[in-house]
Amino acid sequence: MTSVRVAGVGLTQFGRHPDRTGRDLFAEAALTAREDAGVPRQDIEALHYGNFMGALAEHQAHQGPLVAEAAGLTCPATRYEQACASAGVAARQAIKDVRNGEADVVLVGGMERMTNLETAEVTESLAIAADELYEVRAGITFPGAYALMAQAYFSQFGGEREDLAHIAAKNHHNAVNNEFAQYQREISVEQALDSPPVAEPLHLFDACPITDGASALVLVSDEYAEEHDIDAPVAITGTGQGGDKMALQDRDHLAQTPAATKAAEEAYADSGRSPEEIDVAEVHDCFTIAEVLALESLGFYEPGEGIGAARRGETTRDGDRPINLSGGLKAKGHPVGATGGSQLVEMTRLLRGDHPNSDVVADAEIGLTHNAGGTVASAVVHVLEVVN
Amino acid sequence: MTSVRVAGVGLTQFGRHPDRTGRDLFAEAALTAREDAGVPRQDIEALHYGNFMGALAEHQAHQGPLVAEAAGLTCPATRYEQACASAGVAARQAIKDVRNGEADVVLVGGMERMTNLETAEVTESLAIAADELYEVRAGITFPGAYALMAQAYFSQFGGEREDLAHIAAKNHHNAVNNEFAQYQREISVEQALDSPPVAEPLHLFDACPITDGASALVLVSDEYAEEHDIDAPVAITGTGQGGDKMALQDRDHLAQTPAATKAAEEAYADSGRSPEEIDVAEVHDCFTIAEVLALESLGFYEPGEGIGAARRGETTRDGDRPINLSGGLKAKGHPVGATGGSQLVEMTRLLRGDHPNSDVVADAEIGLTHNAGGTVASAVVHVLEVVN
Repeated sequence: MTSVRVAGVGLTQFGRHPDRTGRDLFAEAALTAREDAGVPRQDIEALHYGNFMGALAEHQAHQGPLVAEAAGLTCPATRYEQACASAGVAARQAIKDVRNGEADVVLVGGMERMTNLETAEVTESLAIAADELYEVRAGITFPGAYALMAQAYFSQFGGEREDLAHIAAKNHHNAVNNEFAQYQREISVEQALDSPPVAEPLHLFDACPITDGASALVLVSDEYAEEHDIDAPVAITGTGQGGDKMALQDRDHLAQTPAATKAAEEAYADSGRSPEEIDVAEVHDCFTIAEVLALESLGFYEPGEGIGAARRGETTRDGDRPINLSGGLKAKGHPVGATGGSQLVEMTRLLRGDHPNSDVVADAEIGLTHNAGGTVASAVVHVLEVVN
Repeated sequence: MTSVRVAGVGLTQFGRHPDRTGRDLFAEAALTAREDAGVPRQDIEALHYGNFMGALAEHQAHQGPLVAEAAGLTCPATRYEQACASAGVAARQAIKDVRNGEADVVLVGGMERMTNLETAEVTESLAIAADELYEVRAGITFPGAYALMAQAYFSQFGGEREDLAHIAAKNHHNAVNNEFAQYQREISVEQALDSPPVAEPLHLFDACPITDGASALVLVSDEYAEEHDIDAPVAITGTGQGGDKMALQDRDHLAQTPAATKAAEEAYADSGRSPEEIDVAEVHDCFTIAEVLALESLGFYEPGEGIGAARRGETTRDGDRPINLSGGLKAKGHPVGATGGSQLVEMTRLLRGDHPNSDVVADAEIGLTHNAGGTVASAVVHVLEVVN
């Protein structure tokens, strides 16, 4: 089986882009990735693209061919929608196609425009990732859903708001020198604790922001990389996907995310790696509690042990296994359909040594990304490794 | 490489289902397919699912895990959105996964609810498959877009409304004994000609209806079929996908659909078959003119020759290569996200001999399906063959 190499990566600035269209944002990320790879556009055989709420934000579906054209491509282009894991599932299919010889060169990524909607509209639009019949009509939106998960966690395992505040402060600290991050500034634990309540125990600074942005990666087979003398030291060696019941009420447990556990187990088996071998990870911290649930589902911590990881300094820059050195969704921003691709971009740069935070993990050789949809009714996990 | 077998198929009645949810419709099709296959649900490793406008029709995205749960599945479930080719691209990825050993048993299909919206809302919702900036804001909806294509065809190659009326009459005639069809009734060429104008030269009976419905197929590797003694005489031996510029104004030609040509060329090469070998086909006749463009893109006719095929009796039941024996989108109905899967279901039944119209093509061994998105900015073609 062919090894799948990351030949090039691209991001737009994450934040507000009121004067730009979605296709324009994706074209920028795609062009950057293609230039980084040094791959001519006619060599790209397929685009696998994630977008979540384009039907509501831009009255635009069928975005595959639309953004392919904007990026100067004439290849087949497919859109995937999996809530916040849209680009994650797009990347997964692209990876499988390359390693199985279906294609030698593919472009993957995603895009979301969100800030052109009013805040109330964004909250309503995001709610289409939950169960309309059994959650949304009962009044659930995502801050409320994750608050329920946090309450359940505190109730079963213990923990307190200050534990979560340490996660927010850590991720903001990591974002300070990430030029693509929406919030390149510190917040203190005290500021997080004092921020306005949204849905207890979650306050404003426990939540990721509303973001416009795009991400793109060029993936190639190792044969193509060798033949074209492309420097692509990072390979994607494992992929996994898991699913769960959609509505929280149908789950066995509110404080565990078995979809992510299944995705991780598959990705570990696929790559032949174990949780202990992962040097660094980007996880889906749409809310601070989500980072805790991710750490435990990925096998980094036993259930109930992840809550104190940031506070104890184990997942900070100085810790044994830094988490979300990009700033995470919390501080880098969360353009929903782009996030799964963005995590792969950040991890590639961290591992190949050209990320502003690469020096923090100078010896890192194995990284992991964890991308979740909704209240983790979907999860996609990838393992990346330095291979030469 | 493993041969990909169709182990089981399922459809709901196509038509109006005002009292049912989308998840309920898909669950019915999935259960039927699973029972037809005789595959236990725990053996299904992944769901690849197409849906187009759920965000607007049911305020529901993230439908992968939602419909998987409704169908009694706990496997990873991915949603694809490619306008009217949503289930086509879903099936394509599923096929690649099975033949490459990524999975032995997968469920594919799609679902759309449309009739719960007002007619004007449906037209607006369907328009998200066109280019919002350069087509929709200028007033284009799909009847208008296909009318432009028909005008361009008539202008370049000749042809007249009566040629199109023969296509409508043919497809209605085929649907009469299809128990899943929305319109199980004849229309005459005269009725089609006399139907109210929508966008000249297209009249009401040149257009497919608004439809609720779902489709599902169980695909298995031939090793799995053999090991579990599953009767699966039909294999999917070729898959192809093509893309084009999104907006009609950017195309080189309004009366040709090169995305479908590319998809067909890839599917022919993949299966080792040629257009001449195809015994029977289901093509994407969202409007009568679309059937003509399909026949020419698939290599069944030279440009300008497809327009008279139905009128000459070459694509009718008695013709050399019957087209749309299901009734096509025109008479069977077009629940957008389900259609690509429905075409595969119909073709499987035609080839394995249990379709009401199987006797029309009793000797047929090779079939083709053609599924198009928007004004064919996307196209997916599959080749199916009787293999034992």
